[in-house]
Amino acid sequence: MMLDTSKNILIVGLGLIGGSYAKALRKLGFKISAITLDREDIDYALENGIIDFGCTEPDPKVIGRAELIIFALYPHVFVEWIDKYQSYLKPGALLTDVTGVKGAIVEKIQAMLRPDVEFIAAHPMAGREVYGVKNSDERIFHGANYIVTPTSRNTDAAVEDCLELGRLLGFSHVSVLTPEKHDEMIGFVSQLTHCIAVSLMTCYDGEKLQDYTGDSFRDLTRIARINDDMWSELFLLNRDALLDSMDKFLAEFMKLRASLESGDRETMRTMMRVSTERRALFDKK
Amino acid sequence: MMLDTSKNILIVGLGLIGGSYAKALRKLGFKISAITLDREDIDYALENGIIDFGCTEPDPKVIGRAELIIFALYPHVFVEWIDKYQSYLKPGALLTDVTGVKGAIVEKIQAMLRPDVEFIAAHPMAGREVYGVKNSDERIFHGANYIVTPTSRNTDAAVEDCLELGRLLGFSHVSVLTPEKHDEMIGFVSQLTHCIAVSLMTCYDGEKLQDYTGDSFRDLTRIARINDDMWSELFLLNRDALLDSMDKFLAEFMKLRASLESGDRETMRTMMRVSTERRALFDKK
Repeated sequence: MMLDTSKNILIVGLGLIGGSYAKALRKLGFKISAITLDREDIDYALENGIIDFGCTEPDPKVIGRAELIIFALYPHVFVEWIDKYQSYLKPGALLTDVTGVKGAIVEKIQAMLRPDVEFIAAHPMAGREVYGVKNSDERIFHGANYIVTPTSRNTDAAVEDCLELGRLLGFSHVSVLTPEKHDEMIGFVSQLTHCIAVSLMTCYDGEKLQDYTGDSFRDLTRIARINDDMWSELFLLNRDALLDSMDKFLAEFMKLRASLESGDRETMRTMMRVSTERRALFDKK
Repeated sequence: MMLDTSKNILIVGLGLIGGSYAKALRKLGFKISAITLDREDIDYALENGIIDFGCTEPDPKVIGRAELIIFALYPHVFVEWIDKYQSYLKPGALLTDVTGVKGAIVEKIQAMLRPDVEFIAAHPMAGREVYGVKNSDERIFHGANYIVTPTSRNTDAAVEDCLELGRLLGFSHVSVLTPEKHDEMIGFVSQLTHCIAVSLMTCYDGEKLQDYTGDSFRDLTRIARINDDMWSELFLLNRDALLDSMDKFLAEFMKLRASLESGDRETMRTMMRVSTERRALFDKK
């Protein structure tokens, strides 16, 4: 396809991420349409020059003219949408998404999709603790990672286009992973950390915590403000990988607890040294 | 005593925190002496106007003229220092500290101390992932919490002076807690979070983690760069409170794990909603 600005781009689901995609791409000169449930969001996006055209219903004309469609929907809504409306798609259209889990979604969508269109999955690893198109901001992509997760059904051209999309959006690191490897990684770096943050907030019901905390607690719980509807769906769709990550973490945490309880200072210090070395490498990047 | 700039202040242990105290107080016009092991640190501090006078040995003259002494030492070194050198202290001197645990230290120091001097304990809840006087910076106190932990042996005047010291240093929130309550709080907001960060770093030995992470993982592991010598000592000195905090966290984490495994979405969502509400209150501050 090649992503030149003559292409019509449609964004389905105009929230924080969909809106940020729209802002980034429209600044590059693309014509952006959007379909989203709430009239207010369309009005806001039109008034603020975030999109060129918007509607609240899956209009066959709007869908039928799009060469690139970006789905920023909850996973189950995405599947339902394809089921109901894929007959409107333009032959040759390229579909991509922003879904946070891949194994449970990508093969399912690709298996049900018309053979004359292609779905190439991607995960923009960016977000904020606020929601909606009004909070959208393409700068959340700067410094962030973008992962394309092709399967054997995907063409090289689609993979290239999707990588190019990540670069156009302003992501600092664009890469390719299998859906399985992606989910394993995401179970660890994203879902596990959210489980930890949530548990940290729910485990203490004490008074005036905020008067006594340092930055550590603030940092570890920043992501404890969480969209329960979306994240519970994502957790369940990635259950095995997330359970595996939780168990890996638990094993180390229990080891540290046991060494503290028994006064085994050397085990504690060894863990701290490993941790420090690994985190130092991390900061160099 | 009243903290006016005619008072001689001595800082024992010129590292990141001791150096930051020196910078903040000297800018206010106090005369600052320092005793620290390493000649290089003294030279650096003199050359950069961080202190007025410094030495590497516990000089009786230097100790004997100080009206306020701030100890920024490892806990066991602090206890040894008092044992060896308290005979040099000026009658009426006020001693304070920056130690991260209190129960194991405060009563011990107060019990061994000469009756004509007073030790009032405090914990400046500020730090960085770098060490040494060369990295000292009084701005780390801005926005941070400072906790004074008096016992029945302390005078009201000393508590007031110590609170005033916290305000002079630039802390945003200055408060009073018992040593026991302090240790319980610190076990939760600081030590538990460090245990989590360390376990997160040690539990995964995978490749190229940094290419795929979002901000969540970075935030949760920032404090995984940790001085193993100091933190293992602090953990062991606060063993019971920290074990209790670890167990509280574990109970919630296991609950989340069980609800994920069994597909009990409502329990997951309830935890996420509680977490979100509590963290939102937190951000308002």
